[in-house]
Amino acid sequence: MDSNKNTKLWGGRFANSSSTITEKLSVSVHYDSRMYKQDIRGSKAHAKMLNKIGILNEKELEDITKGLSEIENEIESGAFVFSSALEDIHMNIESKLTEKIGDAGRKLHTGRSRNDQVAVDTRMYLRDEILEISKLLNNFVDILVDLAENNLDTLMPGYTHLQVAQPVRFSHHILAYCWKLNRDKKRLEAVKESTNFLPLGVGAMSGVNYPNDREFLKKELEFDEIILNSMDAVSDRDYILDFLYFGSVLGTHLSRFCEELILWSTSEFNFIRLDDSVTTGSSIMPQKRNPDLAELIRGKSGRLNGNLFSLLTLLKGLPMTYNRDMQEDKEPLFDSIDTIKLSLEGMIEMLSSITLNKDIMKKAVYSNFSTATDLADYLAKKGVPFRKSHEIVGSIVKFCEETKTNFFSLVREDLLKFSDVFENDIVDILSPENSTERKESIGSTAKAEVLRQIKVLKNS
Amino acid sequence: MDSNKNTKLWGGRFANSSSTITEKLSVSVHYDSRMYKQDIRGSKAHAKMLNKIGILNEKELEDITKGLSEIENEIESGAFVFSSALEDIHMNIESKLTEKIGDAGRKLHTGRSRNDQVAVDTRMYLRDEILEISKLLNNFVDILVDLAENNLDTLMPGYTHLQVAQPVRFSHHILAYCWKLNRDKKRLEAVKESTNFLPLGVGAMSGVNYPNDREFLKKELEFDEIILNSMDAVSDRDYILDFLYFGSVLGTHLSRFCEELILWSTSEFNFIRLDDSVTTGSSIMPQKRNPDLAELIRGKSGRLNGNLFSLLTLLKGLPMTYNRDMQEDKEPLFDSIDTIKLSLEGMIEMLSSITLNKDIMKKAVYSNFSTATDLADYLAKKGVPFRKSHEIVGSIVKFCEETKTNFFSLVREDLLKFSDVFENDIVDILSPENSTERKESIGSTAKAEVLRQIKVLKNS
Amino acid sequence: MDSNKNTKLWGGRFANSSSTITEKLSVSVHYDSRMYKQDIRGSKAHAKMLNKIGILNEKELEDITKGLSEIENEIESGAFVFSSALEDIHMNIESKLTEKIGDAGRKLHTGRSRNDQVAVDTRMYLRDEILEISKLLNNFVDILVDLAENNLDTLMPGYTHLQVAQPVRFSHHILAYCWKLNRDKKRLEAVKESTNFLPLGVGAMSGVNYPNDREFLKKELEFDEIILNSMDAVSDRDYILDFLYFGSVLGTHLSRFCEELILWSTSEFNFIRLDDSVTTGSSIMPQKRNPDLAELIRGKSGRLNGNLFSLLTLLKGLPMTYNRDMQEDKEPLFDSIDTIKLSLEGMIEMLSSITLNKDIMKKAVYSNFSTATDLADYLAKKGVPFRKSHEIVGSIVKFCEETKTNFFSLVREDLLKFSDVFENDIVDILSPENSTERKESIGSTAKAEVLRQIKVLKNS
Amino acid sequence: MDSNKNTKLWGGRFANSSSTITEKLSVSVHYDSRMYKQDIRGSKAHAKMLNKIGILNEKELEDITKGLSEIENEIESGAFVFSSALEDIHMNIESKLTEKIGDAGRKLHTGRSRNDQVAVDTRMYLRDEILEISKLLNNFVDILVDLAENNLDTLMPGYTHLQVAQPVRFSHHILAYCWKLNRDKKRLEAVKESTNFLPLGVGAMSGVNYPNDREFLKKELEFDEIILNSMDAVSDRDYILDFLYFGSVLGTHLSRFCEELILWSTSEFNFIRLDDSVTTGSSIMPQKRNPDLAELIRGKSGRLNGNLFSLLTLLKGLPMTYNRDMQEDKEPLFDSIDTIKLSLEGMIEMLSSITLNKDIMKKAVYSNFSTATDLADYLAKKGVPFRKSHEIVGSIVKFCEETKTNFFSLVREDLLKFSDVFENDIVDILSPENSTERKESIGSTAKAEVLRQIKVLKNS
Repeated sequence: MDSNKNTKLWGGRFANSSSTITEKLSVSVHYDSRMYKQDIRGSKAHAKMLNKIGILNEKELEDITKGLSEIENEIESGAFVFSSALEDIHMNIESKLTEKIGDAGRKLHTGRSRNDQVAVDTRMYLRDEILEISKLLNNFVDILVDLAENNLDTLMPGYTHLQVAQPVRFSHHILAYCWKLNRDKKRLEAVKESTNFLPLGVGAMSGVNYPNDREFLKKELEFDEIILNSMDAVSDRDYILDFLYFGSVLGTHLSRFCEELILWSTSEFNFIRLDDSVTTGSSIMPQKRNPDLAELIRGKSGRLNGNLFSLLTLLKGLPMTYNRDMQEDKEPLFDSIDTIKLSLEGMIEMLSSITLNKDIMKKAVYSNFSTATDLADYLAKKGVPFRKSHEIVGSIVKFCEETKTNFFSLVREDLLKFSDVFENDIVDILSPENSTERKESIGSTAKAEVLRQIKVLKNS
Repeated sequence: MDSNKNTKLWGGRFANSSSTITEKLSVSVHYDSRMYKQDIRGSKAHAKMLNKIGILNEKELEDITKGLSEIENEIESGAFVFSSALEDIHMNIESKLTEKIGDAGRKLHTGRSRNDQVAVDTRMYLRDEILEISKLLNNFVDILVDLAENNLDTLMPGYTHLQVAQPVRFSHHILAYCWKLNRDKKRLEAVKESTNFLPLGVGAMSGVNYPNDREFLKKELEFDEIILNSMDAVSDRDYILDFLYFGSVLGTHLSRFCEELILWSTSEFNFIRLDDSVTTGSSIMPQKRNPDLAELIRGKSGRLNGNLFSLLTLLKGLPMTYNRDMQEDKEPLFDSIDTIKLSLEGMIEMLSSITLNKDIMKKAVYSNFSTATDLADYLAKKGVPFRKSHEIVGSIVKFCEETKTNFFSLVREDLLKFSDVFENDIVDILSPENSTERKESIGSTAKAEVLRQIKVLKNS
Repeated sequence: MDSNKNTKLWGGRFANSSSTITEKLSVSVHYDSRMYKQDIRGSKAHAKMLNKIGILNEKELEDITKGLSEIENEIESGAFVFSSALEDIHMNIESKLTEKIGDAGRKLHTGRSRNDQVAVDTRMYLRDEILEISKLLNNFVDILVDLAENNLDTLMPGYTHLQVAQPVRFSHHILAYCWKLNRDKKRLEAVKESTNFLPLGVGAMSGVNYPNDREFLKKELEFDEIILNSMDAVSDRDYILDFLYFGSVLGTHLSRFCEELILWSTSEFNFIRLDDSVTTGSSIMPQKRNPDLAELIRGKSGRLNGNLFSLLTLLKGLPMTYNRDMQEDKEPLFDSIDTIKLSLEGMIEMLSSITLNKDIMKKAVYSNFSTATDLADYLAKKGVPFRKSHEIVGSIVKFCEETKTNFFSLVREDLLKFSDVFENDIVDILSPENSTERKESIGSTAKAEVLRQIKVLKNS
Repeated sequence: MDSNKNTKLWGGRFANSSSTITEKLSVSVHYDSRMYKQDIRGSKAHAKMLNKIGILNEKELEDITKGLSEIENEIESGAFVFSSALEDIHMNIESKLTEKIGDAGRKLHTGRSRNDQVAVDTRMYLRDEILEISKLLNNFVDILVDLAENNLDTLMPGYTHLQVAQPVRFSHHILAYCWKLNRDKKRLEAVKESTNFLPLGVGAMSGVNYPNDREFLKKELEFDEIILNSMDAVSDRDYILDFLYFGSVLGTHLSRFCEELILWSTSEFNFIRLDDSVTTGSSIMPQKRNPDLAELIRGKSGRLNGNLFSLLTLLKGLPMTYNRDMQEDKEPLFDSIDTIKLSLEGMIEMLSSITLNKDIMKKAVYSNFSTATDLADYLAKKGVPFRKSHEIVGSIVKFCEETKTNFFSLVREDLLKFSDVFENDIVDILSPENSTERKESIGSTAKAEVLRQIKVLKNS
């Protein structure tokens, strides 16, 4: 225990050393070590700044920079031994540095505290991950746009209430998700902005007794803005909430998409075939082809929501400024980052290897009265009040159901029993293909409008 | 029941009428009637558009417009009788319109469905409320900036871990919240953007069999953009999630602020006095002055989180496009709107009538070794390695505690017992006032830096 | 405002009256008035107790009891005018009582505070509602058991991963939900127990300066136990959390059940027909029959989760004992009560009017290789290692798919191509009916086991 | 990849092997390996049962049992190498067993599927952990009861709204938490019951084609009950929800307790001193003694809530029976188990080493008019209507505040200025000690009542 006490940076006033459970609850190096790169980058910039304002001399700066680079290499090669007794990644690195270069290492923490150090590391780490996620998001949208473009003439039933509503192009359906994902991109862009504010240089909470050059730090670490209030700098976790929220909405979108992939893969719908590479079998049932990947990603929306609510609960009612509770911000953040990346990779894999069962889709769109609305509108355009038209078509539907008559093969003679308004031009009305093309206004499922979307999405 | 059946717009195919419980679960007019203004505005624009594309003639347009204006007046005067049998605000208004003007009323729904109608109403409603909330937010920040400006020289202890850390200006502490609120404003701005996309004109889900002029609708209803995919238009609820999330973060910020107001109002801290107008007494205990308003607002963070989680759960796994579950989006939305407005009004009331107990704050900042860090930095600047300085000051703190010596009255002679580095210039070090002014870099609690914040905030 | 001030029971020490926003945030009578019956019952018992310990004389007790009964009648007849200025139901009633009977009314609050009064009212209210919900739950399970009993011989495909797995009885599937609901009943029983602890008699937080007879109160108000710590009595909200959690799990179960009803109602599955009385049409699409009720109930799981999270957030970090935040406990509680009752009524309606499309179910169970596992087990029993059997059946499945051969019509000759182990007894293996009966152990889908479940459920 | 394909148990029907991302998303052995003991115990019981029903002979049973015991030893000694390619703990063990003993290993999975196997393992694992948690909970309550018993005569202010309300015994305050924890114990007891139902023996979802003796399995694995519906057996996750909910409420209770410990440790309250072993210093500020442990545990309520909402989201809307999403149930479960154990250990450490600053508590209880209610009750008992008494005492409080008079030193002469009802017996009224003893009814803070609680708690 004594040795343990000696490793602390604040032993002076304390008679007893930390208890085992305190150690266990305090330690974070098993998860925050993944920020080693950012911690080292931040420390190098801080050292350069301390040199600039005369606190470190050239030799000290050089030793620190070299020492930190060595440590980075050791971590990357796996040679670095992390110590739980040193609690977090920051102390693990600082302690090693001092071991390597002596007193200069001890001077590195001048004008800095753990509070602003951990804040700047986390922001830089998240910033880097946002770039990765952004690429995956773009990649995913590209794949969807391609899929849409390559299947422009594939029709399928469009649903409301999971009941067949009206014919739509498969492309149109897929593009609906692109627009949702485009909003996700925008949200991610906003997270990037709220993340890219520099907290470093404010010390524990009120500023420091050194002329820290925060403009220099900002440039060196490529931040957009400086946080102008030291208390805000160490107490703000909005950017993490913003990211977790981005993850929750993205996860919700993906859960909806996966729900559809799962539905479409059932033998009852059978609109698509997911590739063997993204489905699994059963150890018991030889016939099974399970859409596991889609299910797992749908389930991931749970942990993304859980992470958001974890941090919302944690922050509720916390007084200023830094409170130790906040250490608990990192695990949900890291878990959401990993979950989002895995989920997007999984979606990309599924959608880039998907097979469409076009015949079955076509059969489905030619059933369930998918163009009944078109028939009602036909009557309305001939002057029948819409509500009356609706009723007439309702009766036709009923008749077809009861007599097992194929709605799509109805001809004028059949229809005249229900209304004498029907003319020979009725032949064009019932076909799903014609139905989609009659939807002429912006945003519809007509071919021209689907092409417009593809064009806009490609340029966005 | 029969009468009930007759009121439905879709009776044609149905043999049995809705059961009582179906009615009870379906009805929404008790809450969606608050969107009457937006529904009427939307219908007028739709009618104008239908006229433009030749579906309504001038007379019909005029009748519809006049009829809708009359209905608006009736609602506002309280003369309008809402009917649960007509389920929602849309049908209540349409049905009344038809009663007033006959067939033209029935034609209003041409080229439109309930799905795009409810979406456009909700977006316009939220848009209007965002303006109100934005004003309240601005007003609140203004009051805080004024409070900061008027109390520039009031010092108080700054806390980390709720333990006295370092002296800060009261203004600096208050301004920390302004920056949090500024981010809330930015988030609200983003909600406004994601809300201001036009869904109207896409019909039920695939587009309509009429040449709807959606560019015209966009201009008429002052939207920024048109939603380019009809399926996205009726299935998207991101903008509501965005708003609920904005509310959760704002609520979290306010819960933190209220926690501090409650703490500061205790007899133990006693830094502030909340006005009689925002505190209440007890029916039993005659001495009580309870900070009820602050407690209630702190508690409101609960319902704001609850509303967000409600919608996230609801949307999870929903297939395209509109599903009736989505009707449940409005109550959490409306509740969050009301809660946010009440909370901000409450904050404004509390902060604009607050009294600072400056003497007590001053006493507090002159206690608990608030400038111990300054003493350690003093030693460090004289060449003592910081870790050693920290230890020395730790011993001084221990000594003061054990001997009940006033830390702030220590003179060089006292200090020489702990290190011979102390010189006469030590006299300036221990005063909290000097401590704040030594914090010279950007964002610190020094006066110049606080003034910089005020200037930036006033211009933002 | 002055008049407003006069209505407060604690004006003594206050110079300024409450502000409008304080009033708006404090008022609760618009929702807590639904506890009027419990408030009156509690007050009558309290008065009886005060009489028993000599604080109220017979006349006073009689006046109070009569006055309270009158008020109850007035509320029920709609004659009572609630006042927001009097904030809550408790003050509305007390104030009216004093108006009616004078000083005796003022004495009623002796030995009681708002803190223990509101706690006892809420517990009694919830207790009463639990009875209602319990009846609905029992009713719902009864209907399901009847449905199972009446359709014992209806087979359908059982699913894992929403892929056809093995044949099951429709009854077995329905009974699976009964067991889930049985656990909900048990959870509700536990809520009842945790609710039925008497808080009344402890005053504001430490006990009272009167010899309150809490044993008498317990008997009079039919509580099971007395809360033995006054601070716990006014700070405990566990019983509300317990109820909200019960609601979340029930809501989750119902969301799963509704998901299946929605799936089974699609034209693709088409296993059931929900009655006209619980489905709705579309104002646009004449062919639609939407399962709105099932969708609305599925969506209700959102608000049930939201309510739970609302209270969990609220309570997080609250110090002892009563804090005004806690006033926010009632709206989520009431909303969950209403939601649960509506949802159960809706489920009862749907399931008691459901029609099974037995032919379609039968066709589905005779497809998708639902008895492939049986074939593999057949081989295993003949001595083929299971993994090998699994492979052989995998090949048979592949063959059927590629050659469009009907799996269920395969005869020994077909099978010998894949393994020479097949004998004539293979004829019994492929039929789904036989498959279910071969499942002989406890809890399986065999008829005897389904009957066992029905028997146990009827006796539970 | 091919080798990877060969490791799967369901390769037969599949042309392509799993993609890398499928592997990454599917693998669970990095967290489910912690159930190795339960998996082995379950497999041994299953083998014994298979032997009993004639599927395994004595030799095979012996080999399996011996092989599994060896594997258990290898895992515990660290010699076992887990393979991600084998996905989960079940396949890792089964594959190793087959490697060791050949064909008999392959037969172990007869009459079992992964679906019932994972369910029984998880239930046994949770059951074991519940025992550990139960011990910690008991231990924690014991420590609190001891603390209460050892400090019976220590008074402190009782608070409502964080404002001084009435004097209470420190013991009474501490015991309030014991009652909350007692309810947590009861909830945990209920989780134990809902967990202890046997799912094993139902196979994939409908039962198995073997005469599994589930009564035998129940006895062998010490379950209370058998799950009577196979579909419920593989789809039920209620017991995990129940546990996560238990954790959320416990976490909420601890967050409230920790909030108070943090408040009491401030220099402003200063009622307690947390031991050095559970506090930490600052690397920057030499005077700091931060209550990190209390803060960390308060923060843990976040992840406990997050885990609950993660699973609630996941389960929402899932159709029967097993869906792969459910694999995501284990990480939140394990995280809550670990968090709860750490939190309770931390609480035990803090409370068993706490020091009370009794003088400061006493000073606090003799301030802030803590006995003002007693004075009002005194007047009421002399016949002054309570509302009038309340007003009189309000004026006395105001007078004391304005004239800086010590309320507790007031004598009859001072009081007569406010009412002529005061008599000489007033001397006993203002003392906090007397105040607590006047609270004579059940559950109050009087000594006898506190002793009653201690007695009841010791026997519970």
